[in-house]
Amino acid sequence: MSEKMTRKPCIVWQTDFTLSWGAVASMRGVCKSVDPELECVDITHEIEPYSILAASREIVYVEPFWPKGTIFVSVVDPGVGTSRRACAAKLKDGNYLITPDNGSLTHAFHQVGIEAVREIDETVNRWKGTEEISVFHGRDLFAYTAARLAAGIIDFEGVGPEYPVSEIVLLDEALVRADVEEGAVSCVVGGARDPFGSVTFNATIADFARAGFRHGDTVKVSIRHAGKDVFTGDVLYHKSFGYVPLGEPILFNSSTGYISIGLNQGSFLSRYPCQTGKEWTVELRRS
Amino acid sequence: MSEKMTRKPCIVWQTDFTLSWGAVASMRGVCKSVDPELECVDITHEIEPYSILAASREIVYVEPFWPKGTIFVSVVDPGVGTSRRACAAKLKDGNYLITPDNGSLTHAFHQVGIEAVREIDETVNRWKGTEEISVFHGRDLFAYTAARLAAGIIDFEGVGPEYPVSEIVLLDEALVRADVEEGAVSCVVGGARDPFGSVTFNATIADFARAGFRHGDTVKVSIRHAGKDVFTGDVLYHKSFGYVPLGEPILFNSSTGYISIGLNQGSFLSRYPCQTGKEWTVELRRS
Amino acid sequence: MSEKMTRKPCIVWQTDFTLSWGAVASMRGVCKSVDPELECVDITHEIEPYSILAASREIVYVEPFWPKGTIFVSVVDPGVGTSRRACAAKLKDGNYLITPDNGSLTHAFHQVGIEAVREIDETVNRWKGTEEISVFHGRDLFAYTAARLAAGIIDFEGVGPEYPVSEIVLLDEALVRADVEEGAVSCVVGGARDPFGSVTFNATIADFARAGFRHGDTVKVSIRHAGKDVFTGDVLYHKSFGYVPLGEPILFNSSTGYISIGLNQGSFLSRYPCQTGKEWTVELRRS
Repeated sequence: MSEKMTRKPCIVWQTDFTLSWGAVASMRGVCKSVDPELECVDITHEIEPYSILAASREIVYVEPFWPKGTIFVSVVDPGVGTSRRACAAKLKDGNYLITPDNGSLTHAFHQVGIEAVREIDETVNRWKGTEEISVFHGRDLFAYTAARLAAGIIDFEGVGPEYPVSEIVLLDEALVRADVEEGAVSCVVGGARDPFGSVTFNATIADFARAGFRHGDTVKVSIRHAGKDVFTGDVLYHKSFGYVPLGEPILFNSSTGYISIGLNQGSFLSRYPCQTGKEWTVELRRS
Repeated sequence: MSEKMTRKPCIVWQTDFTLSWGAVASMRGVCKSVDPELECVDITHEIEPYSILAASREIVYVEPFWPKGTIFVSVVDPGVGTSRRACAAKLKDGNYLITPDNGSLTHAFHQVGIEAVREIDETVNRWKGTEEISVFHGRDLFAYTAARLAAGIIDFEGVGPEYPVSEIVLLDEALVRADVEEGAVSCVVGGARDPFGSVTFNATIADFARAGFRHGDTVKVSIRHAGKDVFTGDVLYHKSFGYVPLGEPILFNSSTGYISIGLNQGSFLSRYPCQTGKEWTVELRRS
Repeated sequence: MSEKMTRKPCIVWQTDFTLSWGAVASMRGVCKSVDPELECVDITHEIEPYSILAASREIVYVEPFWPKGTIFVSVVDPGVGTSRRACAAKLKDGNYLITPDNGSLTHAFHQVGIEAVREIDETVNRWKGTEEISVFHGRDLFAYTAARLAAGIIDFEGVGPEYPVSEIVLLDEALVRADVEEGAVSCVVGGARDPFGSVTFNATIADFARAGFRHGDTVKVSIRHAGKDVFTGDVLYHKSFGYVPLGEPILFNSSTGYISIGLNQGSFLSRYPCQTGKEWTVELRRS
């Protein structure tokens, strides 16, 4: 019965809206209008514009570090105002993810698991007075629904009608899985937007351990795109950048739980430009 | 008597300071030093440097979505330290706007209405120890006054002496009004900084309805600057981007309450560069 | 016994992580997982990558404006995962600074004073489950330790073993001191990243007063780098930009407590590119 136990969950956001204008502040205003006690926290508003893949990936990097019951809102929504579903998903770890059902749930589906999903009922969970506007569900539907859920005005059932988890729109599974055998991992580039210029592979620390790679090993790395080598080389797998000379490449366990490649105090990405997606393949083999 | 009812209002900010250095954090620190319970929320700190027009416009996009009594602070202040007034305005909807009186109140004056305005009395409402610094009223006057008002240490009268609303510095009215007749709207470019590359016209959804335009109509759009066409074309007016093919233009009700033009998953602004201001005229006619 | 007196201190951050991905949000999540009542506030996450000098400087610009007892966290950490110490310093003004001990404490040491410093004991003050990751002490050590300290779960002694203040890693003192005599100040460029394009000299308002300079004086300014003049000229020292014509240079008391040079509504930095560091020398003499 302490304040701590009964405190309302945070609403934690990501969008591709940027913070250069008032879009995000109007979403926060809606939350404060629903209940002034609600706290809104940003992940990022600089998701690559329209990149559902990035939205799907970014949310699962962050959500394990938040208290259970946190309400995440992800709005990368190129189909806003069309027939795609607006939904709230209850994740198997107890968190919620409110988002357009357009592929943004892919990583959460594979890595966290989705217990149930409900379509937002616009007749009750839409901010009044915005019925003429169809391009900002981030504010008018998603923020409003998240706030009502966080405030306890509605429970998960109050979001709207449930639909089968099997109907959730998912991106290609190749984007979220790695093939692992003894001494070899095949995957794709999962993230290429780290400000320090590291590139994240779509292989987890656990995948790497299953393949038998250990800190101190040298690994043959091959990144290819459209039939061409982007990078090939023998690279040390170790704890952190400082284990190789300045400017040299290193494989390391990234903060996201995946394996990354970077340069010590340099930008791998600037020297070897990569993008995310299944056309950017990665082979990692015992050297 | 509940916590909710007596909760202190948020202080909601916009500046052209950016978040690349500590300016905004020192303003927040002043607020927390006045009263640790105060909550500061950002609109944006990326207003175009020195653009009073952008500051004036941006605040009225956001403020309707916040609870009444919210204290907005807008600091785009090229004349800081000179004779321009530092003021707090009480808006007719119950919100406050604390800002240099340099034109930043223009949109609030026309679209919300200003009930009263007071000049900040520096002898009482200035953060102590900063008297030698004249270039950061954002922290030393505006943040401090906003915090004292939000905390209830002063009431609106405590800001300083009232002066007539008629003395408020206003930008050219052409920047905030549209001419409307049956089948035709004339206005100017109101916003050209949407990260998705849409351009907002200075005509409201209500203006468009008064002209008789309906979703599904095709509208002849002409944007001109310095005697030249920037864009001309027949454009569908509809609910959202997805109603036209990828890369095609569409007119839509923007989230700000104004009419915008954009490209479906493309940037209108990149293809047809525009700026805000009365030199960028817009004609919208029944096609 | 009021809420105000017992309120937990804010955790105030700066990093070079940017807000373009989830790094900062995962640090905030750790804090909320430790105690949902904790409030996290950003200074900036756009410190120049790897710039320990910038980190050291930026924190002392901001910290005087926060209530005593505030917990600052600064993470610019090119040596993460190597032997550099992770520490918490208690400043002489009552604030805390949690940071890698890699030079980031230099300005705090000289300008605020450090009462005591303790090395973070990873065996107790590390977020569980991250032992395999060595590249994100910002989240796994610094955020977690800051949160436990702010929440009152540990006191300062609970951070880990104390070590002598004399062992703190400091940058070259030339970067933080100015030579002052009657009518002359010698120093270096201290800051060159103001979004308005002003350049801050490493001489305080007090240094300028000791040299006998007064508002209204004209000062001979010389900025040199690698044996060449970057800027030379006679410049008015006055209160604010508006005291000189548009585009003209002016010396003024900057918001940081240092002397800056700027152009009225223009960018000094664009016209006379400068960087920070002791290779960028500044001479200021009575004209």
